[in-house]
Amino acid sequence: MSEHLHPIDIILAKRDGKELSGEQIENFIADVVSGDVTDARLAAFLMAVFQRGLTRTELAYLTSAMRFSGEVFDAAISRGTNVDKHSTGGIGDKTSLLLAPIAAAAGLCVPMISGRSLGHSGGTLDKLETIPGYNTQLTMEQFGEVIRKAGCSIIGQTERLVPADRILYAMRDHTGTVESPYLICASIMSKKLAAGLNALVLDVKTGSGAFMKKVEDAEFLASLLVSTGELAGTKTGALLTTVDQPLGRFSGNWIEVWECVDIMKGIRHPFSEDLIELTIGLAGQMLFLGGKAGSAEEGERLSKELLENGKAWEHWVLMVEAHGGDVRVFENPAAFHKPAATRTLTAKRSGYLASMNCTQVGWAIQRLGAGRERPGDPVSADAGLTMHAKLGDYLKEGDPLVTIFAASTSKIDGPAEMLIETMEISDEKPQVRPLILKPITAADVK
Amino acid sequence: MSEHLHPIDIILAKRDGKELSGEQIENFIADVVSGDVTDARLAAFLMAVFQRGLTRTELAYLTSAMRFSGEVFDAAISRGTNVDKHSTGGIGDKTSLLLAPIAAAAGLCVPMISGRSLGHSGGTLDKLETIPGYNTQLTMEQFGEVIRKAGCSIIGQTERLVPADRILYAMRDHTGTVESPYLICASIMSKKLAAGLNALVLDVKTGSGAFMKKVEDAEFLASLLVSTGELAGTKTGALLTTVDQPLGRFSGNWIEVWECVDIMKGIRHPFSEDLIELTIGLAGQMLFLGGKAGSAEEGERLSKELLENGKAWEHWVLMVEAHGGDVRVFENPAAFHKPAATRTLTAKRSGYLASMNCTQVGWAIQRLGAGRERPGDPVSADAGLTMHAKLGDYLKEGDPLVTIFAASTSKIDGPAEMLIETMEISDEKPQVRPLILKPITAADVK
Repeated sequence: MSEHLHPIDIILAKRDGKELSGEQIENFIADVVSGDVTDARLAAFLMAVFQRGLTRTELAYLTSAMRFSGEVFDAAISRGTNVDKHSTGGIGDKTSLLLAPIAAAAGLCVPMISGRSLGHSGGTLDKLETIPGYNTQLTMEQFGEVIRKAGCSIIGQTERLVPADRILYAMRDHTGTVESPYLICASIMSKKLAAGLNALVLDVKTGSGAFMKKVEDAEFLASLLVSTGELAGTKTGALLTTVDQPLGRFSGNWIEVWECVDIMKGIRHPFSEDLIELTIGLAGQMLFLGGKAGSAEEGERLSKELLENGKAWEHWVLMVEAHGGDVRVFENPAAFHKPAATRTLTAKRSGYLASMNCTQVGWAIQRLGAGRERPGDPVSADAGLTMHAKLGDYLKEGDPLVTIFAASTSKIDGPAEMLIETMEISDEKPQVRPLILKPITAADVK
Repeated sequence: MSEHLHPIDIILAKRDGKELSGEQIENFIADVVSGDVTDARLAAFLMAVFQRGLTRTELAYLTSAMRFSGEVFDAAISRGTNVDKHSTGGIGDKTSLLLAPIAAAAGLCVPMISGRSLGHSGGTLDKLETIPGYNTQLTMEQFGEVIRKAGCSIIGQTERLVPADRILYAMRDHTGTVESPYLICASIMSKKLAAGLNALVLDVKTGSGAFMKKVEDAEFLASLLVSTGELAGTKTGALLTTVDQPLGRFSGNWIEVWECVDIMKGIRHPFSEDLIELTIGLAGQMLFLGGKAGSAEEGERLSKELLENGKAWEHWVLMVEAHGGDVRVFENPAAFHKPAATRTLTAKRSGYLASMNCTQVGWAIQRLGAGRERPGDPVSADAGLTMHAKLGDYLKEGDPLVTIFAASTSKIDGPAEMLIETMEISDEKPQVRPLILKPITAADVK
């Protein structure tokens, strides 16, 4: 006889720190999705989980129950090895746009389902939608078709994907239980695994611009993510990375596409080195975990090759075309960048660029118009910024520091002040942390 | 400017183990009572409190906010020193019926507001309502009048008393957060302190028939209760007592009144010693804390005197008359006990009465008809039981062990089996714990 516990018994067990069985968790999530659990009981459960945590096994069951709460992408549809990447944040982070075509060029399939960001900068979907005609709202059938054609596809989350996460997330937001690493993990992994992945790499961020400010918190989350993926039968690895400054040259929407397009076409921008370093690091993991390389290092070498020999570019063009996008804008991306207002902020004094609160940089980008305040708000394709220095660079008084773009001059002043305020210039050369702190593998979380 | 935090901020603070200010707690409870806090947020708050606990100061503020959430009894109405007792449970515990008249006889005022029990046996109100005409539903004005006349009054809780507790208790019951000592304390003390008490004694029970099975849990609750009372400006003390067997001779409704009436009239029943011991212990504290004795010991001596010299009896009669009760039933209480069905259970073997699960005894009493299953159920005046032995007594095979009473023979079999099953008779004389383990005073919780 199956053990269908009443929701209250599951709350009591978790409240007292007892381990729940897979069946108990599955029943509870099924009851949540069917509306048989009151808001108050769901809230009590979430707060109990927040306080008591979950074992790795419980977390795997919770993730699985959420993953299968709605429509899933059948791995077989792509007729290949499905791999993906997920990042926990970042400013100017556009690696997805490069990773999908690199992995596709390596012969892997990338069914990338992206949520619409509510954070500072636009999400991957907002960036892609600056390409005229690019349609992010495909059915699962069309999604499979694009992947079979281009090897990769990046689409928006459908209403029918992981309904349990929408319910849980709304309740966490309402009751102050967002910041639980266990609940964060289940939310991320249920959505990613619903794409039927054979392999997954996670970019877990730490630093002033990341959700997890402390390295140890990020490392703990990474270990939960890797363990949960592995328990679901998906080869999973993570990189622990820093967000102490914007990644690459541009932060915004179209300007990020522009930077990626140029990199794939073999044109190097200034300040793009860190973006390429992170992309190659993540791609190396994807190729290794996806079975296209014998090690992460070999995967990195292969990825670099595919980026430099134009193979990634070919898959990018195939993908954009398959999504209905007009690839002619890639011929001269700079010409497509037409911000109504531009201002360059300069160094107030000579010295080294020492630090910034990268979350504040993110909010400045959002207020420039590149991100949204409320779900459904439009975002500006042109808004954003470009740094003229990286942390540790020496500037003379009056040197350009950052150039900002917006759709109107009225949107410039506030963000300009926020940026100037947070950029610290000092006489001493600062210690700059590496971008990639370390990989976290399945062996690390055993 | 007053600091009216949004409910979510209070949840976040408690979630992270931060101490809430008095103003924050007051605002939150006010918002709960006015309906401005969603069920989900209240549930999350309660689970956070369950997990994180409360400081003594937070608990005092929570109790105070709940206490003043509705109507309160103005201490001035009684024109005296208001004292009361509260007990956390018990089987056959009828001390309230004796304590109120004893304290009144000592010159104190006893505004005793009693909840209607949902537990095994009937509550104090159910016992009093077996007296023909006794009205437990008085207005606060009538309540004050009875106290001025008799020195004591025992009434039921009105709808307008401590509405915050009704809301919180219903939500705790719904979400599995009943068993928090902090929330239990706030619930008990908000209702007791709403009677405007100058002094309060708490009988905190532990043992197989108590809510708190472990001595350390009961002692912790007692320390919270005493500290909360003292912080509210009410002289507060507690006795830590055991519930390993029914208290006194009778357990039920009318039969408990009968036992008390006879004790006050100077007629001693067999097996009433423990009831008298506990009554005197609690009364001693009440008289000491209420300023009528220089020490608890002196209070005990005085209480014994007032019980034996007929003064308590006088106040009992005054109180019952003032409530509309027909005191003629006290002339021959035994004649008023007319159970339709009676059965005496005997010892199956010779030996010492060694132990029983006193909660099971309680449920047997409930199923006999003395307690209710659901709120609003009627209770039988006649149902209950009388023990013919106390723990440690030697019985010969066939000796009477317990006699049970019910309103119909069909209600006898189940409870009889429950009782026989739980009464252990052994060859070795058992170690019987003292009834009163120890007092817990304001000095103990400083």
